[in-house]
Amino acid sequence: MPLRHEIAHLSHVELFTPVPEETLAFCRGFLGLTETGRSGDSVFLRAWDDYERTTLKLTARDTAGVGRTNLRAASDAALHRRVAEIEATGRGVGWRDGDPGYGPVYVFHDPDGHELGVYHETEWYRPPPELAPALRNQAQALPGHGIPVRRLDHVNYLGVDVERNRDYLRDVLGALVTEQIVLDDGSVAGSWTTFTNKGYDAVYTRDRTGTAGRLHHLAFAADGRPDILRAADLALDQGIFIETGPHKHAIQQTFFLYVYEPGGNRIELCHAGARLVLAPDWSPVDWTEAERRKGQAWGLQTIESFHTHGTPPVEPTAVSATTPGPTVQR
Amino acid sequence: MPLRHEIAHLSHVELFTPVPEETLAFCRGFLGLTETGRSGDSVFLRAWDDYERTTLKLTARDTAGVGRTNLRAASDAALHRRVAEIEATGRGVGWRDGDPGYGPVYVFHDPDGHELGVYHETEWYRPPPELAPALRNQAQALPGHGIPVRRLDHVNYLGVDVERNRDYLRDVLGALVTEQIVLDDGSVAGSWTTFTNKGYDAVYTRDRTGTAGRLHHLAFAADGRPDILRAADLALDQGIFIETGPHKHAIQQTFFLYVYEPGGNRIELCHAGARLVLAPDWSPVDWTEAERRKGQAWGLQTIESFHTHGTPPVEPTAVSATTPGPTVQR
Amino acid sequence: MPLRHEIAHLSHVELFTPVPEETLAFCRGFLGLTETGRSGDSVFLRAWDDYERTTLKLTARDTAGVGRTNLRAASDAALHRRVAEIEATGRGVGWRDGDPGYGPVYVFHDPDGHELGVYHETEWYRPPPELAPALRNQAQALPGHGIPVRRLDHVNYLGVDVERNRDYLRDVLGALVTEQIVLDDGSVAGSWTTFTNKGYDAVYTRDRTGTAGRLHHLAFAADGRPDILRAADLALDQGIFIETGPHKHAIQQTFFLYVYEPGGNRIELCHAGARLVLAPDWSPVDWTEAERRKGQAWGLQTIESFHTHGTPPVEPTAVSATTPGPTVQR
Amino acid sequence: MPLRHEIAHLSHVELFTPVPEETLAFCRGFLGLTETGRSGDSVFLRAWDDYERTTLKLTARDTAGVGRTNLRAASDAALHRRVAEIEATGRGVGWRDGDPGYGPVYVFHDPDGHELGVYHETEWYRPPPELAPALRNQAQALPGHGIPVRRLDHVNYLGVDVERNRDYLRDVLGALVTEQIVLDDGSVAGSWTTFTNKGYDAVYTRDRTGTAGRLHHLAFAADGRPDILRAADLALDQGIFIETGPHKHAIQQTFFLYVYEPGGNRIELCHAGARLVLAPDWSPVDWTEAERRKGQAWGLQTIESFHTHGTPPVEPTAVSATTPGPTVQR
Repeated sequence: MPLRHEIAHLSHVELFTPVPEETLAFCRGFLGLTETGRSGDSVFLRAWDDYERTTLKLTARDTAGVGRTNLRAASDAALHRRVAEIEATGRGVGWRDGDPGYGPVYVFHDPDGHELGVYHETEWYRPPPELAPALRNQAQALPGHGIPVRRLDHVNYLGVDVERNRDYLRDVLGALVTEQIVLDDGSVAGSWTTFTNKGYDAVYTRDRTGTAGRLHHLAFAADGRPDILRAADLALDQGIFIETGPHKHAIQQTFFLYVYEPGGNRIELCHAGARLVLAPDWSPVDWTEAERRKGQAWGLQTIESFHTHGTPPVEPTAVSATTPGPTVQR
Repeated sequence: MPLRHEIAHLSHVELFTPVPEETLAFCRGFLGLTETGRSGDSVFLRAWDDYERTTLKLTARDTAGVGRTNLRAASDAALHRRVAEIEATGRGVGWRDGDPGYGPVYVFHDPDGHELGVYHETEWYRPPPELAPALRNQAQALPGHGIPVRRLDHVNYLGVDVERNRDYLRDVLGALVTEQIVLDDGSVAGSWTTFTNKGYDAVYTRDRTGTAGRLHHLAFAADGRPDILRAADLALDQGIFIETGPHKHAIQQTFFLYVYEPGGNRIELCHAGARLVLAPDWSPVDWTEAERRKGQAWGLQTIESFHTHGTPPVEPTAVSATTPGPTVQR
Repeated sequence: MPLRHEIAHLSHVELFTPVPEETLAFCRGFLGLTETGRSGDSVFLRAWDDYERTTLKLTARDTAGVGRTNLRAASDAALHRRVAEIEATGRGVGWRDGDPGYGPVYVFHDPDGHELGVYHETEWYRPPPELAPALRNQAQALPGHGIPVRRLDHVNYLGVDVERNRDYLRDVLGALVTEQIVLDDGSVAGSWTTFTNKGYDAVYTRDRTGTAGRLHHLAFAADGRPDILRAADLALDQGIFIETGPHKHAIQQTFFLYVYEPGGNRIELCHAGARLVLAPDWSPVDWTEAERRKGQAWGLQTIESFHTHGTPPVEPTAVSATTPGPTVQR
Repeated sequence: MPLRHEIAHLSHVELFTPVPEETLAFCRGFLGLTETGRSGDSVFLRAWDDYERTTLKLTARDTAGVGRTNLRAASDAALHRRVAEIEATGRGVGWRDGDPGYGPVYVFHDPDGHELGVYHETEWYRPPPELAPALRNQAQALPGHGIPVRRLDHVNYLGVDVERNRDYLRDVLGALVTEQIVLDDGSVAGSWTTFTNKGYDAVYTRDRTGTAGRLHHLAFAADGRPDILRAADLALDQGIFIETGPHKHAIQQTFFLYVYEPGGNRIELCHAGARLVLAPDWSPVDWTEAERRKGQAWGLQTIESFHTHGTPPVEPTAVSATTPGPTVQR
């Protein structure tokens, strides 16, 4: 049974924030997301062209960080095959009710402890009249405010052991490894994997603090490079912290902008141009330490906080104790 | 005395609308203008990077159309020189109080009867704290909704006699004629004139209905071609009528989108790239009928309504009676 | 066995031209393709980010038209499964040597008679030093001339019977049908199908002349909307015929420009923004005649030649005799 | 007599290079300039939309640096008024033959010793048939290679005493001072001045080495932000050194990319969006040291070499001896 494409795509992700009102305002006013409902401490939000009901589940919590990442299986049969394999790894938690608009989800953890869920049944989003699009092949009318982002793009996890997490996604979920940072000592400091024809859907980069289960960033797809430049202009005048960019990554060649939402989570706005990974037998592109020292595609040096900031935040003292290794730019 | 540059630039324009609430919603939600005040039947609105207080004065009126177009003289001395020349033409009306934020304005009419005003004294816009920009060389924070347009760009009048109006702007106000449509019979069907280094600030195109004082369109500058493409996407989902575009004009090579605001006035969103008219002795570029038949820059045929729709609207029967001449695409 | 993803993607396509030198100049100077070799009457060309050796095989022939379309199977096993199913349909021709850089290809025909080939073995492109890219995740240095197009995007065939061809791609090759034009009489006038997460890879639209095996257009992906606008500017000054665009399709929402290469084949430059079809159970979006009469996304009426021009050309008399049906805009 | 607009615009600039063949290849292949002639050690090149014959005069010389900057007077009368005032300052050199295609030029020096020339008579560029544009309001067909830049934009001189140079341009040539860097000690470390409605045409920034007559950079206008992003991609694959960018300046808000041409001169590609300085009484925007420490518009720190690299190069020891002052980011 070919593993590839058993997971169809990354679905909605849960984000924790200690300042839910401010983060919600950021999501609506800057990202241009639309609220679709609330439940308990959570607000459900969607990007205008995601076909399912939810793109982001925003949950109030003491500290920032990432909650469950949902993955949609390609079919009911694929779902049950994946669940069987997950259970065999001993990392399964069990079936849970899905979020509103979603069928049952099987919850499990990656080796680093990030919570994941896999499901198949879903409800196609039907907009209310005031959000109806003019064209029938579009999920929702284009919002007139914010960027607005088109869809979720990828999640970048911090991981204590990148290789173990990468192998889990590849061997159990069928992800294709597309690019990697391979240090001079042979260890892998970053791994980009995909379930689709996009260059990447899920990424692990080494957590130098040695803390498990953290988030490096969550990324949304903008519809073009110009939207990302405009996002930077909007961020400037809306008082949103720009960490780095707009610029172009060497890895995956993504055009990017990194900001922090008010709760502290790093958010990327990204655009891949017309780049796709179409080769079914793509071999990972391995980047060396020397290559990473050249910085981003056009020579911008990787910002220092890119190696230190993650959510939840950890004490900086932890960093020095656990990262004697080389400094490599992601 | 060199006339050129005595008029520094086109300033705010008054637009009439029979549906003030709908037009206001269009100006705010689609154009991204900011309301700065109200007076009587008028609402004052501004584009985010105009340095003066007002970009557009929106006035409730039975029919759509254009009110006063204000021109800023380069200095007080220039103002009085221009007023003296205007008075000598017999087209002067007299001094009036300016709109809020503006000094006295001398009101007059072009040969076609459109109301114009010239003034020098003005108040530099100072935004309230919530609209303060991050950079001190910007008039106002970038709005997070709508296109948003950066500044007023030009006004395109319909005129019964293009040449007389053109000559008035050139000889009395110091405009430079940059491009023209010259019919096979030698008459001028359209004339583009500028006070600045932009390709054009004021345009006259022949009114085939023979009706004086009408508006062809009012244009706002978007900050780039991508903003105009996004404007088309927004128009589609906001139910705004797109007349033609996005495309690129052959004349002046402006990238454009034409929509009708709810009151019926034609509004252009335009972008000129890096094109400027820097030559002080620029000779008018004359386009022939044969050239205009080729359509716009990339071959798009000029839409028929471009020759018939103006504000205020006139009875269509009037058209056939007064335009036996050749059909030329603008 | 799930059919979907057995075919990994569309690979290189063969185009016929009666004016090989002129078409080659167009491919190099306008499209920005790079020549990689010649064989007999054929020249092999590649887009800068295709990972395989060839994007386009240009072959001298009496008339314009499309030759073999190559499809890459996801694996050797998938290849043989597909070949077995093709043979069972009676449309197989047999194994042939692949073009230089490609392994054996199994040749067959779609119901309309277009030649197709399926293969798995391929040679990854390795650029000569003067074409080496700066980044190791890129196939070739970005050409400094022409648009340049990033990769092949899709092929749009004219077909006498759209449904039969659509069914063949769907049932035998595993394509997903994403959008369709369904006439008021229930017949399908156009069908967009995909093997990937792109909205479409292979399209059939009804040939109103009733002639089998013709080409509507071949499309290349530009890296963004701005590249397509620049393509229009380049076409204008290079004397390349622009048929329609730049504009945005309602179907698939692709930003497009259509030109004719000197040999007469219609070529599309396209960009999809960040739009992808990620849903594994996507239901075809069916467009009605009434919807198609609205024209393209922003209201541009579909150009008449879009319904009549195909390659090889056929006598116009044939058209009237065989298309009594309704006129629908694609 | 109002000084403003007596100088119509910046015209062609002479650049010195110790590696003329390499610099020429850069100008043609990367900038997309067209060679129009040669004379002695000089090659004349033009950007596609400059209306005069020459944009850049490239002259072989031992070291990199800037030669004469030519300014076009608005009229013959304006020319002679300016010459009379220049002579009165004692900085005049005298009348010389203009470069091919230009009338007599009056040569002089700014207080820093940079060579300038003012003239009025000029030949409008008439392209040969193979470079003829499709539209009659365009100087030359759009080149199909390189960026290509549309026109010269500005020249940024290093100056020992910024204020003296600024005053000379303002008081003798009629430039308008639009923005400045004013240090905490009250001195001016940078001054942006304009002859047109562009934000700036001529800039002086303090030369920390205390060396007179050097060049900080020469800038060409790209037609949009996307062209500058593509320029960065081209630079990367053409092995052209990118110093910093693409990014957006805080000062003047220009979108920029800085590269070094092979001879060592810094070249900027820039785009201003729709930003213009239309106010005839614009007051200089003064930036403080604290504001400059924030870096560029989106937070990018100004690169160190921006403060040290100029042409001709000077010994770095000279720098430390002459720049005890504060470090301010331009």
